[in-house]
Amino acid sequence: MQMIKTAVVGASGYTGMELLRLLLMHPNAQLCCVTSRQYAGESLASVFPRFAKADGSALTFIQPEAKLIKDSGAEIAFLALPHGVAAEYATALLELGIKVIDLSADFRLNDQQVYEEFYGTPHPAPELLQQAVYGMPELQGRSEAIREAQLVASPGCYPTSIILPLVPLLEAGLIDPQSIVTCSMSGVSGAGKSSNVLFSFCEANESVRAYSVPKHRHLSEIEQELGIAAGTPVTMSFTPHLVPTHNGICTTTSALLTGDASKISEVLEKAYADKPFVRLLGENNPADTKNVTRTNFIDIGWAVDQRTGRVLLYSAEDNLGKGAASQAVQSFNLMAGLEEQAGLHNL
Amino acid sequence: MQMIKTAVVGASGYTGMELLRLLLMHPNAQLCCVTSRQYAGESLASVFPRFAKADGSALTFIQPEAKLIKDSGAEIAFLALPHGVAAEYATALLELGIKVIDLSADFRLNDQQVYEEFYGTPHPAPELLQQAVYGMPELQGRSEAIREAQLVASPGCYPTSIILPLVPLLEAGLIDPQSIVTCSMSGVSGAGKSSNVLFSFCEANESVRAYSVPKHRHLSEIEQELGIAAGTPVTMSFTPHLVPTHNGICTTTSALLTGDASKISEVLEKAYADKPFVRLLGENNPADTKNVTRTNFIDIGWAVDQRTGRVLLYSAEDNLGKGAASQAVQSFNLMAGLEEQAGLHNL
Amino acid sequence: MQMIKTAVVGASGYTGMELLRLLLMHPNAQLCCVTSRQYAGESLASVFPRFAKADGSALTFIQPEAKLIKDSGAEIAFLALPHGVAAEYATALLELGIKVIDLSADFRLNDQQVYEEFYGTPHPAPELLQQAVYGMPELQGRSEAIREAQLVASPGCYPTSIILPLVPLLEAGLIDPQSIVTCSMSGVSGAGKSSNVLFSFCEANESVRAYSVPKHRHLSEIEQELGIAAGTPVTMSFTPHLVPTHNGICTTTSALLTGDASKISEVLEKAYADKPFVRLLGENNPADTKNVTRTNFIDIGWAVDQRTGRVLLYSAEDNLGKGAASQAVQSFNLMAGLEEQAGLHNL
Amino acid sequence: MQMIKTAVVGASGYTGMELLRLLLMHPNAQLCCVTSRQYAGESLASVFPRFAKADGSALTFIQPEAKLIKDSGAEIAFLALPHGVAAEYATALLELGIKVIDLSADFRLNDQQVYEEFYGTPHPAPELLQQAVYGMPELQGRSEAIREAQLVASPGCYPTSIILPLVPLLEAGLIDPQSIVTCSMSGVSGAGKSSNVLFSFCEANESVRAYSVPKHRHLSEIEQELGIAAGTPVTMSFTPHLVPTHNGICTTTSALLTGDASKISEVLEKAYADKPFVRLLGENNPADTKNVTRTNFIDIGWAVDQRTGRVLLYSAEDNLGKGAASQAVQSFNLMAGLEEQAGLHNL
Repeated sequence: MQMIKTAVVGASGYTGMELLRLLLMHPNAQLCCVTSRQYAGESLASVFPRFAKADGSALTFIQPEAKLIKDSGAEIAFLALPHGVAAEYATALLELGIKVIDLSADFRLNDQQVYEEFYGTPHPAPELLQQAVYGMPELQGRSEAIREAQLVASPGCYPTSIILPLVPLLEAGLIDPQSIVTCSMSGVSGAGKSSNVLFSFCEANESVRAYSVPKHRHLSEIEQELGIAAGTPVTMSFTPHLVPTHNGICTTTSALLTGDASKISEVLEKAYADKPFVRLLGENNPADTKNVTRTNFIDIGWAVDQRTGRVLLYSAEDNLGKGAASQAVQSFNLMAGLEEQAGLHNL
Repeated sequence: MQMIKTAVVGASGYTGMELLRLLLMHPNAQLCCVTSRQYAGESLASVFPRFAKADGSALTFIQPEAKLIKDSGAEIAFLALPHGVAAEYATALLELGIKVIDLSADFRLNDQQVYEEFYGTPHPAPELLQQAVYGMPELQGRSEAIREAQLVASPGCYPTSIILPLVPLLEAGLIDPQSIVTCSMSGVSGAGKSSNVLFSFCEANESVRAYSVPKHRHLSEIEQELGIAAGTPVTMSFTPHLVPTHNGICTTTSALLTGDASKISEVLEKAYADKPFVRLLGENNPADTKNVTRTNFIDIGWAVDQRTGRVLLYSAEDNLGKGAASQAVQSFNLMAGLEEQAGLHNL
Repeated sequence: MQMIKTAVVGASGYTGMELLRLLLMHPNAQLCCVTSRQYAGESLASVFPRFAKADGSALTFIQPEAKLIKDSGAEIAFLALPHGVAAEYATALLELGIKVIDLSADFRLNDQQVYEEFYGTPHPAPELLQQAVYGMPELQGRSEAIREAQLVASPGCYPTSIILPLVPLLEAGLIDPQSIVTCSMSGVSGAGKSSNVLFSFCEANESVRAYSVPKHRHLSEIEQELGIAAGTPVTMSFTPHLVPTHNGICTTTSALLTGDASKISEVLEKAYADKPFVRLLGENNPADTKNVTRTNFIDIGWAVDQRTGRVLLYSAEDNLGKGAASQAVQSFNLMAGLEEQAGLHNL
Repeated sequence: MQMIKTAVVGASGYTGMELLRLLLMHPNAQLCCVTSRQYAGESLASVFPRFAKADGSALTFIQPEAKLIKDSGAEIAFLALPHGVAAEYATALLELGIKVIDLSADFRLNDQQVYEEFYGTPHPAPELLQQAVYGMPELQGRSEAIREAQLVASPGCYPTSIILPLVPLLEAGLIDPQSIVTCSMSGVSGAGKSSNVLFSFCEANESVRAYSVPKHRHLSEIEQELGIAAGTPVTMSFTPHLVPTHNGICTTTSALLTGDASKISEVLEKAYADKPFVRLLGENNPADTKNVTRTNFIDIGWAVDQRTGRVLLYSAEDNLGKGAASQAVQSFNLMAGLEEQAGLHNL
């Protein structure tokens, strides 16, 4: 059986932990290197008691140095690092011949000026932007590009839940690209493994609120991908909310219909019926986060609101799964020449 | 001290329980009658252990019969009954000279045809529709009308959270009334004290989803009140979501700006600065449900999205409080000639 | 690769769902039959949207009839049925040559009088009691017995969390068998997929309470197994509590030390160091349910309270996992001649 | 109406916030001073948005200096400070003629050596120990002592839930004082307003675990009060657990019966029937935290376990209420010559 030597760089947060969980169970991945400045020298099992007595859990965290990662034999490295930092490691690892799947925002935007507008800092490695592939395998031509890529920019959690339902409708010209209004609700793990008292149990429980208004950073990659699908620049309204669940993102998107409403189902079916991780729920059947947590699935339902001439799109995914770690493993599978679903059969 | 003899008809659900909680603590209300078919003959304290040893908790549930309610000496009765049933009791109690505050949908709509469209049944007492006052005291001229009313239709939970932020902007002509898109998130108590397995802990926890799409019944009263404010009929897009909190509604509304964005704060301040239960949070400061639970407050924040030309309105209230029971008590205070805030100082 | 044809009888509750989840991912199980009176004729995927698009999810629920189960080719059947009902199916399936793993209480007790005392009804199939093996593979000689068994009585959720920490100490004579006091806290899924309003989100959230006091049914099997270990009948105090989590059981047990406290670690290490699903956390390190949910692990910590001469034992398991479904799969692996950990590598 | 000028020193945590909530609504308390090093200069309403637009919420936090507190006119001061720090303020405020209700552990123990054993530091003001009254008004002779006290040591959250059910049984000689085993489950607010990642939503939700084993600091005051009731020193086993609720403590205590089990109800009734904040639930009726949150009630149920000769005591209180802030307000009422229930009618 083919075994790919794999590193996870920056494995101490929730996305890193989910990557470890998936890779420890992956039949074709051999976790050979995990890094963490904070935990260097400690075993995986001692940092994450959940993993104790699992195969591979005796592995020890090392310092995040490109040379050490190379020495571990890693062929593909996941970066679960803050933006800005990720780009440095990507550059160094690529030079050492290691393929990189970056889960930060550093390589998701084609345009370095948009990066600077939304992230407030010059791009740390603009020369790599053209080479990076935005790792959403369900988009047209994308899985082929990922197979060939040295550097994949794995998408953000909100973008995945917004882009996938909209793209087929934009491509088919069924909706007005300037009329999109989206509300998303994210579980608290989306804020990371944080010591901010705002995300403490007593502050987050029994609390629902919007945040990062009105211009969340993820808008940049969402509008980029929607613009590609629409064939014209897209500007949209997006409001993220924090809700008291551990994980899961529920997204509701509304857009004015410009085409034939009766074609919506057909267009979505054509786009996704054969995609292993997209589940179409049908009309008037909103998606529920509880059905997708800890999986790589995204569930999509829809409704036509005749009264307002709008289509409503309902999607649900795991912000740490299809919105982060498992989608990155999906790219890993493609880059490594494995079956797209390898190691992603979790239910 | 003035004491108003008060009845709660249909007191076994969550709204009924919240009414009882408020009235047991109210300095000017004497709870003289609580009815429940299910619990007739049992004491308040045995049905609601939370109320044991409180003054008034020795009261016994009686059958919901108008004659018995009259005999209890009740001057004002709250109806926490299903729509359709409520209208019957309202008719009988009004005839017996008891003022009625109805928390069902039966008297919220001015137009009986809209009632039939949204509730799927002929209106049970159309002759009372013109007499009923929609009990949202913060709206123009409304508190005066409530003071004089024999019959108040207390608003629904979603409507309160949507109408209050929008009305001043519509009245000032700052937004396009046909461009409104709203997402709301409600705690599970909004579904009532239900034995439906869908609302069991294991199904509702770690679950976020839209429901009742795309035409929730509350749209009828929302559009009615927005239409009055706009001076023109309004049709809008509204998506309610269920989130795992006990109570609280968080609402995010987006509308296209047609007027001067810089006037938003001024218009809202003018409308609400002197209203005791509306708290304006200012620009870019979304409302959080955790600050309003078990109170009669509604918190409102807002943002201007220059990129899309939209204003975003963020509101939070308790679905059982300002969205139901405590707003009804606010009307009670006005009808009884009490201070508007009597018994509503909860924090 | 060896594939065992497997049936799940009574697959509509939470234990049944967890069995399905494990078996759909199991490399050596071929789910050939799922039964449910309620869902007969519907597909797995339509009843459990979580399983949609998974291999095997196209399977259709059938009526729970022994003949139909036999016709499906099933070699081993799991019974996730109420006690009393389970015994009937066990009898019929065993006669048809199908091995049975019963997750009800019907075959857990050696003594039919104890069954009648605790379950309030005559035993439905006393002739099978001697043949049944109590399916806790970590106990001495038990995994060998399970390998040979036609009928395994898979243990209850509380018993597993209480028996495993205590047995080595009782066998070593380190504690007084009559001094045991246990408190357990269970997630709400322990109450089953229930429409009882007591287990609704609004009633169960922010609620912690004892229940089934002072003589919970599970005491019967706990005292049976502790008595075997102690070599003398054991009577103990056990209080179960309901806490607002989805799954997980946390158990704290206290017993008077009669032997050398310094031997506790050694005795536990000797018993469990080589058991794949028992993780010893060491002294003064209580177990946390969050580390074991959705796994077959049980975590065990302990402390010596010099002040009272007591040992404290802390254990955590998933009530649906090691406390029900995954422990049953562990027996399945042994009965089928598979590796004990097959299909149980979940993290 | 009598108005007592009141200060809250250290008002930024959860206990402080609950004190503020109660005092802002208290008909006889005039909050004249709130201190917080962190928030000095900010208004109550800006630090605690829940309190905005409430009477008194315009008050500004000041630095915690005894002189400034005196200048505010405060007659009685609540100390919601860490142990060690509290004693310093108590000394200074008492010297300035301000009565003190200390919610820390500094004055709960009669014996300074026990303090040093459990808190690991010399007592900061041993000369005040004999003067302090342990503020549990339901204990014999205690409410009279509190009325006269200059310094009240308000009890801890666990102690209240353990001491109140046990004291009448110990006084009546019904149980063996050396046989007590207690398990308590506390909501996360018991850990304070903490930025420790352990208490973040994602770590605390779906987590149940024991902690501070086997010798929690609160044991010292529990054993002191039980010893007074028993007339002999008491040593007991106590295990606290953390469960995912906001507030509430559920306690289950087991003890060997030495007297007549049939007298338990009578003894408890005699002790508590006329106490306004103790509710006796009767036999086989465990207490549920959801009925006491945000109140000053403690609910107590019990059961006799004939099999083991043990009595089980079940109690529930709000850790921030009867376990902290509202119990302190109860002492405040007594010290100020008010009705014991003043301002504590919350439901």
